[in-house]
Order: sequence, then C-alpha cells, then structure tokens
Amino acid sequence: MTTTLPIRRALLSVSDKTGIVELATALAANGVDLISTGGTAKALRDAGLPVRDISDVTGFPEMMDGRVKTLHPKVHGGLLAVRDDAAHAASMEEHGIGAIDLVVVNLYPFQQTVAKGAGRDEVVENIDIGGPSMVRSAAKNHAYVAIVTDPADYPLVISGETTLADRKRLAAKAFALTAEYDAAIASWFAFADQGLTFPDTLPFVLKRAGPELRYGENPHQHAAFYAAAGTQARGIGQARQVQGKALSYNNYNDADAALELVSEFRDGDPACVIVKHANPCGVATGATLTEAYRAAFACDTVSAFGGIIAVNRPLDRATAEAITGIFTEVVVAPDADEEAIALFAAKKNLRLLLTGDLPDPARAGLTAKTIAGGWLVQSRDAGRIGRSDLKVVTQRQPTDQELADCLFAWTVAKHVKSNAIVYARDGATAGVGAGQMNRLESARIAAWKAKDAADKAGWDAPRTIGSAVASDAFFPFADGLLAAVEAGATAVIQPGGSIRDADVIAAADKAGLAMIFTGMRHFRH
Amino acid sequence: MTTTLPIRRALLSVSDKTGIVELATALAANGVDLISTGGTAKALRDAGLPVRDISDVTGFPEMMDGRVKTLHPKVHGGLLAVRDDAAHAASMEEHGIGAIDLVVVNLYPFQQTVAKGAGRDEVVENIDIGGPSMVRSAAKNHAYVAIVTDPADYPLVISGETTLADRKRLAAKAFALTAEYDAAIASWFAFADQGLTFPDTLPFVLKRAGPELRYGENPHQHAAFYAAAGTQARGIGQARQVQGKALSYNNYNDADAALELVSEFRDGDPACVIVKHANPCGVATGATLTEAYRAAFACDTVSAFGGIIAVNRPLDRATAEAITGIFTEVVVAPDADEEAIALFAAKKNLRLLLTGDLPDPARAGLTAKTIAGGWLVQSRDAGRIGRSDLKVVTQRQPTDQELADCLFAWTVAKHVKSNAIVYARDGATAGVGAGQMNRLESARIAAWKAKDAADKAGWDAPRTIGSAVASDAFFPFADGLLAAVEAGATAVIQPGGSIRDADVIAAADKAGLAMIFTGMRHFRH
Repeated sequence: MTTTLPIRRALLSVSDKTGIVELATALAANGVDLISTGGTAKALRDAGLPVRDISDVTGFPEMMDGRVKTLHPKVHGGLLAVRDDAAHAASMEEHGIGAIDLVVVNLYPFQQTVAKGAGRDEVVENIDIGGPSMVRSAAKNHAYVAIVTDPADYPLVISGETTLADRKRLAAKAFALTAEYDAAIASWFAFADQGLTFPDTLPFVLKRAGPELRYGENPHQHAAFYAAAGTQARGIGQARQVQGKALSYNNYNDADAALELVSEFRDGDPACVIVKHANPCGVATGATLTEAYRAAFACDTVSAFGGIIAVNRPLDRATAEAITGIFTEVVVAPDADEEAIALFAAKKNLRLLLTGDLPDPARAGLTAKTIAGGWLVQSRDAGRIGRSDLKVVTQRQPTDQELADCLFAWTVAKHVKSNAIVYARDGATAGVGAGQMNRLESARIAAWKAKDAADKAGWDAPRTIGSAVASDAFFPFADGLLAAVEAGATAVIQPGGSIRDADVIAAADKAGLAMIFTGMRHFRH
Repeated sequence: MTTTLPIRRALLSVSDKTGIVELATALAANGVDLISTGGTAKALRDAGLPVRDISDVTGFPEMMDGRVKTLHPKVHGGLLAVRDDAAHAASMEEHGIGAIDLVVVNLYPFQQTVAKGAGRDEVVENIDIGGPSMVRSAAKNHAYVAIVTDPADYPLVISGETTLADRKRLAAKAFALTAEYDAAIASWFAFADQGLTFPDTLPFVLKRAGPELRYGENPHQHAAFYAAAGTQARGIGQARQVQGKALSYNNYNDADAALELVSEFRDGDPACVIVKHANPCGVATGATLTEAYRAAFACDTVSAFGGIIAVNRPLDRATAEAITGIFTEVVVAPDADEEAIALFAAKKNLRLLLTGDLPDPARAGLTAKTIAGGWLVQSRDAGRIGRSDLKVVTQRQPTDQELADCLFAWTVAKHVKSNAIVYARDGATAGVGAGQMNRLESARIAAWKAKDAADKAGWDAPRTIGSAVASDAFFPFADGLLAAVEAGATAVIQPGGSIRDADVIAAADKAGLAMIFTGMRHFRH
C-alpha cells in the first residue's frame, strides 16, 4: 500500500465555513478538482474557484429539500473503491465513477438545534443523513481517502497530499464524530422524545478537557478529566484556574465534594467548607467569610492541613490571609477580589479556582460510576428538606437555635461518607464522624474529635456540649443516640424509619432531647 | 399526520436471519412488496416468496464486493421523502422513486469481528456503510417509515401496519444502535489502532442489565445497573443469582467491593471478606473457608450484621451454616455445593451470587465516575507488590510471620477507603481504620475497634498485640506510627516517601519495629 497519496479530487460540503475558501484555494492551486454542494459551492464560486456541483457528478438533482443529494453510487463508489483492486477499478470505469481522495464535511448542527430549544420537527430535520454517510465511507476507506471533519485539520491536507498515518488519525476522529453525533440523537430520542429515565442503551460521549493528568488516584494509575459532550453542566472542570499547578485527580475529586457542599449554602450566610479525602473536616457559616473560615478550621485543625477549601462568597483579602495561615491545596470560590488574588500570588502551589455563580444544589442529573463489569447509574442526590418536612417526635420541641443547628448538621451530613454523624453548634460543625461500618462508631468518633479539638484549643469543654447531631440514616438502636447524649448533644435530626424507632424516641425523651425525623436518607459512599 | 400507516413496500437486508422468513411470509400475505439484497433475497426466494432485488430498484448493480449496493437516491429517496409534501411527491414521480414503508436491517458484525481477534483488514471491511445509512434515513423519517433493527421487534410490524408510537420507539432504538455501532468503531480506532489511553473523544455505550432498581443509594433517587457494551468484563452484574430478592444499588456497590477484595486472594488459602458501606469490616484467610469466615467475623461482630460476604472458594455447607448465624444481605462465591444452596433456601432474604472463576486482580481496565460537570477516568488500581518490591528500612528484619501479616494487611488496606490503617495478625484483620480525614485517627480508630472486639469476645488482649500494620499512604509524621506501637503492632508496611521518613524510621527503630516500604500507594476514595 502506498502510504503518501496525492489528492486529485476533493469533495467539500461544510456547514461551518471557517477556512474553507483558503483550503479550497490552496487545493485548486495544486491542481485538485473540487466537487461541492449548495452553500459551500456558492462560497467557493464567489471566491472565484472552479467547482463542480455534486449533481453534475451524480446526474441526479439535489432533491427533497436537500434530504437526498450525495447518497449516490457515483459519490460513494468514488469514496469506497479499493483503488488497486481490478474488479473495483473496472466498476469505476464502467459506471464513470471518479475516485475521490479527500472529503471535507461537517454535519448539520443537531446538538445546537436541541440546545437552542427547537421544536420536534426542527430537531428531526437537523438529523444529518448524507453527511455521516460520506464521513463513514471516506473513513472506512482511509487506505485511500482522507476525511477531514474539523477546520483545525485543514493544515494536514492543504499541501495536496496525505500520509497514511494522517489518514488513519483522521478516520479515528471521523468515527469519534459520528459516534458522538448519533449518541446525541439517541439521547434526544430516549430522554426528550420518549421521556425515559434509564433507556436500554445509554450512550455517554466524553470529551477530554485538557491534557492527561499527571497520574490518577495513585502514581501508578493514569488518568484524565473529561467533560460530558453537549451538557451545560458547571463544576470544577468549568472553573477558571487563576493560579497554581494543574489539578490532580484527587484535587478534582475533593474540590468537587467541597463545591457541592458549599453550594447547599449558596443562598445563605457566608459559608466555608474544608475537605480532606472527599469528606468535610470542617464546615461553618458566619457573619463574614473570615469568621466562617475560622470556625470551619477550628473543627479539626489537624485534618485541615493540605485541605481543599470552598466558600460561597467572593473571596476577600481578609479571608485569603486567614487561609494562607496553613498549607492549603485548593481554594474554590465564586469569585475573588483583586487583593485576595494578589495575596495568593505569593503562594505558588495554591490553586485558586473561580466558578462564577454556584450550581443549584437541587438540580436534576445522573451520576454514574464503574464497578467490575458494569456501571451504577442513578439520579443525583438532589433531595433537600424544608421546615415543613420536619416531624418532631419527642416530648420536647427544639429551640430555634437547636432547629437551625439541626438543619445545618443535616446539610453537612448529606455530604459526609456513610455512616455519617455530624455534631454542630452555632452554625459550625463541632465533630464529623465519617465512613464507618457502624453508626455507633461514627457517633463516638465525632465526639472524640470534638474533644480533641477542645483540648488542642484549650477550650473548657468540647463544642458538642449543647450541640445538635445529625445522622445520615436512622439509628438502628438507641446506642448511637446515647453516645450523642454522652457527648452533650441536646437535639437530634435523623430520617427515622427503624423498626426500633419507639426505643430510640423513648431514649431521647428520657434524656430530655428534642428529636426531628426528616423522612429522607442521605447515604453517600 | 396519520398515525397508523399501512406497509406497502418493505426493504429487508439482514445478516442475522432469525425470523426473517416468517416475517416476510406474513408481510407478503398482507400484499407487501418485498425488496431485498444478496443473502437475504436468496433466503426469501428459497422460501418461495416473491422478492425484488435492490439492483432492480436502483438500476445500478451491486458492486465493489458489496461495498456499494443501497447507497442510491431511489432507495434513500424512497426512505426520506415527506409523503404529503407536494414537491417531494413530484420528485418521486419524476425519478420513479417508490416509497418504502418498512426497513428491516441489521449490521455487519463489527464488534464480533474485533472480539474474535480478526486482523486489521478484516476489522475495517466489517465496518458497515450501507446498513447504518438505511437505518438512519428510515429512523429520521419515522413519521412515515418503520425501522426494525432487532428480530425481537418483528411482532410490531408483522400485521402489515405500524403506529406512530411504535415508529418513534423503533427510531429511538435505531439511533441507539448506530450510536453503539460507531462507538465500537471509534473505540477500536482509538485504542487498538491508534494505541491511545485517553482519546480526545471517549464514547461509553451502556446497556441496561435488567429492570430499573427499586431505588438508588437512597429511596428518593432512581437507579439502574448497566453493563458496558461489548466488554468481556466479569463482575457482580454477570454473576448468577441463585436466590433472594433483586440486588439494590448499595448491594451492587458493596458486593463489588467484596468481590474485588476477595479476588486478591484467588490463588491463595481459603479467604473471606465482610463488607459494610463499601469498606471491609473483617477479612481473613484460614485452613478452611469456615475458619476464614469465623476469623473475619470476629474482627468486628457489630458491623458484620447485615453485611456483604465474599469468599474465594466454592461455598460449602459448614460455611453456609456459620454465615446464617446472623443476618447477612448478600453472599458472593465462585460456586456453591448443593447442601450450601439447600441450607440458604430457608433464608428467603439472603441473596446468593455465584460468579464462576474470580476475576484477575491485576487485569487492566478503566474506571470512571461523574463529578459535577465532568468525569474522572483512570486506569483501575491493578498495582500489586511482590516480595522483591519490598524494602526493609529498619534495623530489625520482619519475621516470616510478620512479613506474611504485612502483605495480608497491605492487600486489605488497598481496598479500604482512605485514610486506611489495617492491623492484621495470623492472616486475619485485627482492626480496620477507614475513611478518616487524617491518618493518626485511622490508626487510633483501628486499635480502638480491636480493643472493643477483644472486650466483646472476652479475650485477654486485643489482637493488635503482636500484629502487623499497613498504611495505604506514607506516615507524614511519626505520630501515626506511635499510635500503632501503642496498640501493640510489631511490624509496619507502608509506601514510604514522606519528607520525614527519617523521623518515622527512627521512631520505628526506637520501638524495635520491623518496617517495610513498598514504594506504592493505594488511595481509594
């Protein structure tokens, strides 16, 4: 097989006309015959280039509003013929089929039509048929034909000849394009038209965003960050990185956890979240962002080292200054003022990410993760409770402060790995019990950490005294609740629903607690 | 738009001929004109059915070894025409184009050709061009045309008429098929042909395996389990469920964690893993599977309640009997003998999954998970260390038993959520510290759990006395190591690599420990 081949005839048919005249001019100067369709042919003629219409090639007029123009053996024979096969050559000769060496095509803007909210008929009309057929024929026959689907690749063919290596790369890109295009169509049919949540076939087409990451969760793993094709979603990958080296795999994961949690507070008081190993180690609200940061930090000053911080307000200089008190990996904020940015500039290793408006914590969406041999796909945990969802099950009603602390602790617990127990007081976490295989241990760990924090800070007593405690799932026995009582909690928020709820309520009443059932669970693994 | 339409002319072209003669016979009996190609036409003629060749329709011979046969305006005009559009009708009239109301097509077996290990030329030849073009034309024009790509859907069209609702569903399925087909081609080009690890465009096509799950990680979330199209991967989704109700989302997640961990022991002694909330709460090897189960259970009898158990040997009656001592959600085993199966039959809620041979823990593969606005994709953690990777950094060498326990604890720690600290003695975990935001706490929690277990069991001392301890990442300070010393550990295994390694080694030497560096980290979040 000859690897470098001259382009003698090119078929150009593009809706995005960027650079097409320049390419065609260069090709024509190299003696390449140009074939084209509709608007592309007009653009080339207007530039004074000699162009043959596709209908001259096929002997068939363009018809049915352009639905049928290139689907013809004289086009596809010219694309698919094995040039050095005698029988194929004879067929070309017999039917007057000319070999086409280069195809430059881009497709009807299906995805953009959907994105702009077009009606059903317009969406369906924007399913390109002829384009993908040409792209696929040319890509299949890359031994002889170059298929260009992106103006960025025009330099590869502008010289008038192509190498086999380039033709293979272009074919790979062409099939990636048709796969993405039909995935978008299939998704529209499944979700928008059929109204399915979990269709039989679920195509995800991911687009790599930036270069490969330095490594994955560990140095012996390779990794990359991808964006979902065609979504408007906003997250860490869409944030503007003001400074610092590239994000690592674990930075993405932790920063995502921090952003998702701080977004729960987007409409409230200034709030700050500190995350380590995908769990919040301190969360607080405050009258100012600096106060919120200090209160979040105080919850666990050991874990906060090398942490990922997210805030719900534009970062100001005072908060930036407080943050630089210890080593921090990543700071995520909706925005930052110039003084804060200038102050961080001295900390070369700190990554500052500005997200713009925080995402809506109640938005719909799917999450997915691989397990061996398959994928677990679910709607994201967009569940939120309001005051009307709450049911006080104890004799004692919570005070206003207890109620506020219960709701705060509950919001944090939703973002702590299960089993999760969170103590909170005065709008700040007092202790976070995460990731345990039984609930009692999470309750004890959280209390123990609060005691550690008090010892380190020289406080008279741990902040669990007089706190509210949230549990991400029901207490199966009274023991977990009793551990919270022992730690000093006076109010409890939990889903309820255990067959032993009566025992747990009785224990709460005996201890004089106020306890609220939410009816909603927040496991997170 | 008329919603129910008669089928007057059908185009049949299938490589999988299941049921095609029966369908064609019924259609012909309803007066439907049949058009067909090559092998399909022959099969129908052999059955005595009247069939028109596609080349009669197009006036063009099938040519180029079948590469070009249906790519013709007389076919695609017949598929794409808007029947009640006067201009389209005039074009049909003028060019002698007959409307086609039904297309029955399946595609060249590209995926099967790749799977059987065919050479490059054969793979490329099996990229179907004409088939997907017809499928896409017919699907686009579902207002008038029914597109059938699966013999299972023949009953929808066998009556000789189609409803709009069916035509829409069939179009959705058709685009799911072409998306899947081109995703397979794009993947072959990217991975097999171009040798990329993280291509610019990464298509994942998932196939729902079974009905929607009852709910997701929580009751207010919807969920489904999907298998990756075209992979040979084996896991929980491919296991045979012998009994019990359908797996929940959390069952899949936990059973996957248990299977992946027990697979690390597939070539060793009998082994048992108990998982809760995606973390192992007890892992052990033993002379028999029953011994292994009892030792795993003894590590944390509280968390084991409602756990997910995986074993590395066919389940026998004695082990099954031991397991039924407490409530267990799921048991995963390569196989089970009849007596074990009979014994479990009395426990209606227990799910028994038989996987066949355990997967290779060192196999390559990609894992992926969504974060807001994107996907984190990485090579799976297939890293494993052998004895030659180990570097003893202390004055004292480990004893044979310490070395064995170090390797065991290290293997378990790889599957514990970070920060992970695992104590092990005599081939069984003594304490598992999981999911903490700092390493010192994991060390203390694991020791504390071991003490709890000893108190519950009435042992003289916790099993951390004389144990080996594994840390999934380096100790940043000596404090975590000292906590392990305090718990009674005599040997340590960890990656090494802290800037304070010298301090940590000095502390180990001072305490008379043997410490091994692995040079490999196993974060898992």
